[in-house]
Amino acid sequence: MIAYTTYLTVRTKKRYEILDITDHVERVREESKLRDGLIFVSAMHITASVFVNDHEPGLWADIMDWLERLAPAKPDYRHHQTGEDNADAHLKRMLLGQQVFVPVTEGKLDLGPWERVHYGEFDGQRPKRILFKAMGLP
Amino acid sequence: MIAYTTYLTVRTKKRYEILDITDHVERVREESKLRDGLIFVSAMHITASVFVNDHEPGLWADIMDWLERLAPAKPDYRHHQTGEDNADAHLKRMLLGQQVFVPVTEGKLDLGPWERVHYGEFDGQRPKRILFKAMGLP
Amino acid sequence: MIAYTTYLTVRTKKRYEILDITDHVERVREESKLRDGLIFVSAMHITASVFVNDHEPGLWADIMDWLERLAPAKPDYRHHQTGEDNADAHLKRMLLGQQVFVPVTEGKLDLGPWERVHYGEFDGQRPKRILFKAMGLP
Repeated sequence: MIAYTTYLTVRTKKRYEILDITDHVERVREESKLRDGLIFVSAMHITASVFVNDHEPGLWADIMDWLERLAPAKPDYRHHQTGEDNADAHLKRMLLGQQVFVPVTEGKLDLGPWERVHYGEFDGQRPKRILFKAMGLP
Repeated sequence: MIAYTTYLTVRTKKRYEILDITDHVERVREESKLRDGLIFVSAMHITASVFVNDHEPGLWADIMDWLERLAPAKPDYRHHQTGEDNADAHLKRMLLGQQVFVPVTEGKLDLGPWERVHYGEFDGQRPKRILFKAMGLP
Repeated sequence: MIAYTTYLTVRTKKRYEILDITDHVERVREESKLRDGLIFVSAMHITASVFVNDHEPGLWADIMDWLERLAPAKPDYRHHQTGEDNADAHLKRMLLGQQVFVPVTEGKLDLGPWERVHYGEFDGQRPKRILFKAMGLP
């Protein structure tokens, strides 16, 4: 049984940004030599998401607008009494989710036609880590 | 160690529909001979969800109304400039989530009293696939 | 390969409450002797969540206010025609998610600097169960 762990550090240019990280998941599959199992992908910071959706910049903009409507950046969160200014990022990350699994079957990422793995950053411009753990059969 | 993969194709009659797929998860458990582990259930299309909630049609209608309130179908999404008309489905699927795990213990689905696995379709009336992967001990 | 299952019963004092259960996840790791793998943590009731976020009571209050804004408690849900009064809890639990995995690497919970595992209760004051399943290598 394989249990292979690796980390990716990302630093987005903007405070709010969506990145397609599917190619990195594929690299993890190659390094791990996993042939049948699951690759766990998890944001290690609580102001970021990992989710599966379409690689389409128009949709990414729709997602960011929609998150801002449902969980707006504004000054009056209680969390900001601690000196923080990112409560909206903590909420936005919940809406998209914090971790996903990518199935691997017969040595390939077993994704549907449009499924791509994305990292959603809501408090960026500094180093953030993503954890990958491949588990299953070689 | 078992790693058993299978797929289910569903085609809903309506564009928006919720299906209880727990019986199919039980079939996957039987076929896989899994006695202790987890069954991964994932929507392979990015306009559908997999989630755990109550088997209660009144609640299903509440869920659909609520999704429409938070992520309405409307023409002015940027995603629609690509020719698509289903941006709301991409957003709705995020609110309910895209994948769940069903635990298996001593050869049985280890679910709470009201837990049922559901498939949420938000752009249906065409074939869509769900991936199942049973992993663990026989 | 390890597959170790255990359950925790919680009974919150309030109907709506957030609990940090990270210390219990650590206990499960110790009991299971898992050195490399994942610990699955899942709410077995459909009116509760498991999620990863900051251990900060101000943020917890922000989360509860935000959930109430997006999925308010009110009498007119269809689900209430069955005699229930907790449809909002079924919706709130979807927003935060129902299950998470905690990675274990080299015998330690492999969490980011602020990641803590939380249980979100939206229909409490009675016993509820959480399932833990540790899977991987000893």
